[in-house]
Amino acid sequence: MEEKIKISMLLEIYGKLLTEKQNNLLDDYYNKDLSLSEIAENENITRQAVRDLLKKGEKKLFEYEEKLRVMEKSIVQEEKIDEILSEIARIETKFTDEEIANVLDDIKNKIRFLV
Amino acid sequence: MEEKIKISMLLEIYGKLLTEKQNNLLDDYYNKDLSLSEIAENENITRQAVRDLLKKGEKKLFEYEEKLRVMEKSIVQEEKIDEILSEIARIETKFTDEEIANVLDDIKNKIRFLV
Repeated sequence: MEEKIKISMLLEIYGKLLTEKQNNLLDDYYNKDLSLSEIAENENITRQAVRDLLKKGEKKLFEYEEKLRVMEKSIVQEEKIDEILSEIARIETKFTDEEIANVLDDIKNKIRFLV
Repeated sequence: MEEKIKISMLLEIYGKLLTEKQNNLLDDYYNKDLSLSEIAENENITRQAVRDLLKKGEKKLFEYEEKLRVMEKSIVQEEKIDEILSEIARIETKFTDEEIANVLDDIKNKIRFLV
């Protein structure tokens, strides 16, 4: 996974464990795509200070993931869900009974919204 | 959910965010079912000190859950999974085709191990 996407996911999961300021800075950079200079100007600090604060926040996010593995588990879950959905799609073609086809559709929708 | 079970679940999820000592004390009390006196003796501290340390640790666990909601989400997921499993069990009775019955069984097993 690309580093930027990974950090954005980690921020979504663990952001509330950071200080509000750290959380906002990382959100500006990783989700709102502001540049270091733009953030520096908004916060009235140097670009180097922004860089340091981002690094500190990222480090914390990786430490939380190292301990709790919420992201890892949810990625594994999503892979399993994809597998199950393919399997249902595969057997679906074997049905002519409309009621059963509807139930399978319903199951697929429910599985999709598990995560 | 009973408070003791809840704290035991929270400990399973967030225990690694506590200090090692806190984690061990809560594990002794909530999982290994040691009494306050037994823990006090093992740790060479007073029962009141054990009580205070447990309270502190519990408070942290609830704060983590307040922020990350990992337990809440996994309870909701398990409920949804139960729903899906019942639905599959319901349609399963309608099949005579053995291959399809096998595939459904396989899907049920995969869903069961999602969480």
